[in-house]
Formats: sequence, C-alpha cells, structure tokens
Amino acid sequence: MYEILKKHKSFGGETIFAEHYSQSTKTKMRFSLFLPQSVENIDSAIIWLSGLTCNEENFITKSGVQAHLAGTNTMIICPDTSPRHLGIIGEDDDYDFGSGASFYLNASISPYADNYQMEDYIVKDIVQLLKNDFNTNKVSICGHSMGGHGALVLGLKSGTLFKFISAFSPILNPVLTPWGRKAFKGYLGDNQNAWKNHDACELLKQGYKSDANILIDQGTDDEFLKEELLSENFEHAASEVGQKFRLNYREGYDHSYYFISTFLNGHIQEHLKHLA
Amino acid sequence: MYEILKKHKSFGGETIFAEHYSQSTKTKMRFSLFLPQSVENIDSAIIWLSGLTCNEENFITKSGVQAHLAGTNTMIICPDTSPRHLGIIGEDDDYDFGSGASFYLNASISPYADNYQMEDYIVKDIVQLLKNDFNTNKVSICGHSMGGHGALVLGLKSGTLFKFISAFSPILNPVLTPWGRKAFKGYLGDNQNAWKNHDACELLKQGYKSDANILIDQGTDDEFLKEELLSENFEHAASEVGQKFRLNYREGYDHSYYFISTFLNGHIQEHLKHLA
Repeated sequence: MYEILKKHKSFGGETIFAEHYSQSTKTKMRFSLFLPQSVENIDSAIIWLSGLTCNEENFITKSGVQAHLAGTNTMIICPDTSPRHLGIIGEDDDYDFGSGASFYLNASISPYADNYQMEDYIVKDIVQLLKNDFNTNKVSICGHSMGGHGALVLGLKSGTLFKFISAFSPILNPVLTPWGRKAFKGYLGDNQNAWKNHDACELLKQGYKSDANILIDQGTDDEFLKEELLSENFEHAASEVGQKFRLNYREGYDHSYYFISTFLNGHIQEHLKHLA
Repeated sequence: MYEILKKHKSFGGETIFAEHYSQSTKTKMRFSLFLPQSVENIDSAIIWLSGLTCNEENFITKSGVQAHLAGTNTMIICPDTSPRHLGIIGEDDDYDFGSGASFYLNASISPYADNYQMEDYIVKDIVQLLKNDFNTNKVSICGHSMGGHGALVLGLKSGTLFKFISAFSPILNPVLTPWGRKAFKGYLGDNQNAWKNHDACELLKQGYKSDANILIDQGTDDEFLKEELLSENFEHAASEVGQKFRLNYREGYDHSYYFISTFLNGHIQEHLKHLA
C-alpha cells in the first residue's frame, strides 16, 4: 500500500511520486516510479538505488529512463536513499553520513539502528510492495555510486532474488575508502569484520556470487575513481573467484547524471533481457 | 567570448555551463550548451528559452535533449531566464516577476529598464555569440511556457532570423492573462498598447508572420491552460491571418518537464530539418 503524492503522464505511462510506511525502517519512506503501462500489464520491475545526496527524485527527473522503458511491461522504482526527519542529532549535518547516505545497510549501533534498516527495506519492503501492489515477482537491481554499491552488495547477498545486477560508478571496496569507512564506523561500529558484509569485493572473497553477468559502467574522468570507487579491486576480486562481469571504462566521462544518461539505455536493455 | 564554468562529457559531446558579459543587459549572464561535436563541426544552433522559475540548468538537465542531438552538427544553447543579482529591491521576491521571469522583453521603465533588455540579449547577444564563437548563422528557437511565449514573439518579430519556431505549453495571449499583465505592467508601465508588441496573438493581428510552420505542443491536463496559456486564442488568430501552424493537444499531459521530454524529439527533428 502506498499513497500517491504527485503523478505526471510521461511517454505514454506515468511518473509517480509516492510514500508508504516501512516496517523495516519504522517510518514513512518516499519513492518514485515509472509505469510504462497500466498496473495490470506490468510484469517486472527494476529497482534503482541512487547515490549520496540524492533522494527519490534525482534519477527519475534527470536520467531519461522513461524513454527507454516506454512501451515495455517493466516498471522502475527509485526509493529514497535513507530514512529522514527522525530527530537524530546531526542526521542532516554531513552529505556522506546520515540522511541521504544510508549505504543501504542495516545499522547495528545507536542511534541509527532503530531506523536505518535499509538493506531490509530494499530486499523486503520494496520487493514486497512490488509483489503486492504491482503483482510482479521478477525484479532486477541497479544503481549509481553509493547506490551502485547497494545494487552489487544486495545483489550478491540475495541469491536469485534479482534477475540482473548493474551499476554506474559504484563504490566497490568501501572497507578501504573514506566514504565507506566513515559510514561503516557510524552505522556498524568499530568491528571491521562486520564491515566486510557490506563490501562487494569482500563478499566475492567470502564466496558470494551472482549467476548473472554483472554490468558496470565507469567514467575514466570520474573525480572519485581513484580514492572512493576502486574499480580495479573489483576486477581483481571478480576475476579471482570467477564472477562473470563486464566493466566498461568510458573515456572522458565523469561521475554525473550526464554520464549515466549517456549509457543508461545499454543497462536498461540488459535488464529487460534478463527480466523477459 | 564566454567563460566555461563546468563541462561534462555527454552522448559523445559536451554539456557545458558558461557565462559571458552581455552588452544588452550590462551584466554577466549564464547559459548552458550541448555540443554534439567539436566546435569546428557545428553548423547550426537551436536556442531554448525556459519558463518561469527556471535558470540555465533546468532544460539541459531534465529534458534529455542530448540524446536527440547526439551525432548531429546542431548545438543547443539555453540562456538563463533573466539577469540576476542586480540589487533591485524586490527582484527575487516573486516567482512570476523579476529574476527568473523576464518574459524576454526589453523593459522600458525604471528600475528594470537598465538591465532587463532580454529581447536584445537573445536576438543580438546570443545570436552574435553563436556566430562569433561557434561560427554558425543558422539558428532556430523554441521554449516552454514563458519561454514558449519568448520563442513565438521573438520568432514572429525577427523576420527570417530563425529558421524554425516551436513551443511547449506557451503563454500565447499574455495581454489578457495574470502572469502577462503583471509582467507587462512592471516592465513596460501602464500603456497597454505597448504590451501588444510582446504578445503572439496581437503580433499576428498586427501582420507579423513566420514563413515557417510554427509547431506547438500543449497538454490537455496543463493546470495553466485555461487561465494563463490560452492556446485557442492563438488558433483563432493564426487561422485568421493565414499563419501556418500545427498545434498538437496531448491528452492527459501536464505543464511539466515530463511532458516536454515525452514530445521533445518530435520538435528537435523539425528543427534539424529546417536547419539542414
């Protein structure tokens, strides 16, 4: 069940902004949708996870995804990147921690553990919403930056739940990098072993694997590539354990939505193929 | 001459944010560009005029235009919707007057007359910039809402300067409607005869005409259609004087960028045809 806040006819379908109460985060959460058809005709869904500082609006507004899904039976749902307005002291102070920066994990320490159960929110509440309200069991996942991290980590940990996994400019080895270490320390505490359950490279080393051929696009002029994203570490880890993947380096592209929108259709077509 | 503030590789070309000093507005003005090719290969340009509350970013970020111009020799330039930061008392107070709301006219009364010379800014400074910095004389014009008004009014008044004119949800008869009357009174004073030089319907009645077949798209669920846009008045005025036009009513679409992005490619293809 969800409440529609706004809707706009788009490409023959509807772009919708909505909110619902989440059992996992114990608070209202917002999301956006694009439905290329009436609900009865939807048979599959892509979950999009956005990056730091984003909310449920950025991707659906800037990416041009509606053009690529128009006329298909596949919807896309774009959840907000964290719970909000909880009254936790400092929750809105940093762009890379707290609101807008959940890292899509289940926080285990106070004061975030009560509501920042974002892994559960995505793999339980959102997946359940898709089943109950849109009658679709076929789901895939993708995302950008922190959301690319989320797509890979949740994808690797969720067995066959997601039919396809893809990412733009993902944070790939966050136990080693500033954004990841700050978030993990704040949400999970000082035990660095616990951090490894939320890191794509570490999960591959632990034996987690996806049957699907993971697709990643990465701009070579991405200002965060060397310090925060570490795509080479993923290439090594995935090759080592035999995880199928395709990592496209895109010459001259940066970390922005201008990069995402350029290569989005390639990702969408792969998702559609695996959801068919 | 212009200064690049930011650039992002997009669809094989570049999305650029820039600023320059305008002789007409006597202040620095910002604009965005999409260059699908290196400058040497550009041979024509579309000018996009945005609506109330917008600046140079909205269209280039939300419309998906880059996908439609990718690989062509036609650039698009999207000027800001007004001068800004002039120190005029109240310039930022209203969403529909002052900054973000120039109506693309040359103001004739104090305190706006000194800088709000936006008609000159578009048809002189921007056209000159396209000639000098991009070596292109072939230019067309389009816009949305207040910017659709601008495209039609400047298009009708500028003879053969623009090879094609199109608009989404334009304000078509502003001498009769609240937004238009407020703007005209504030920029032009109480003489309503002067207002008529800035109204598409009135210009047609005065004998202004375009050789091109003007293209307009209008959503039937546009919340501003009946009170502010008055597309039927344009249909009557244009039919009366034999101005060629095509006005597409789009069932269920509203005033938003979701509407624009849905039908933008149709407009761009017409512009490309007339710029070829």
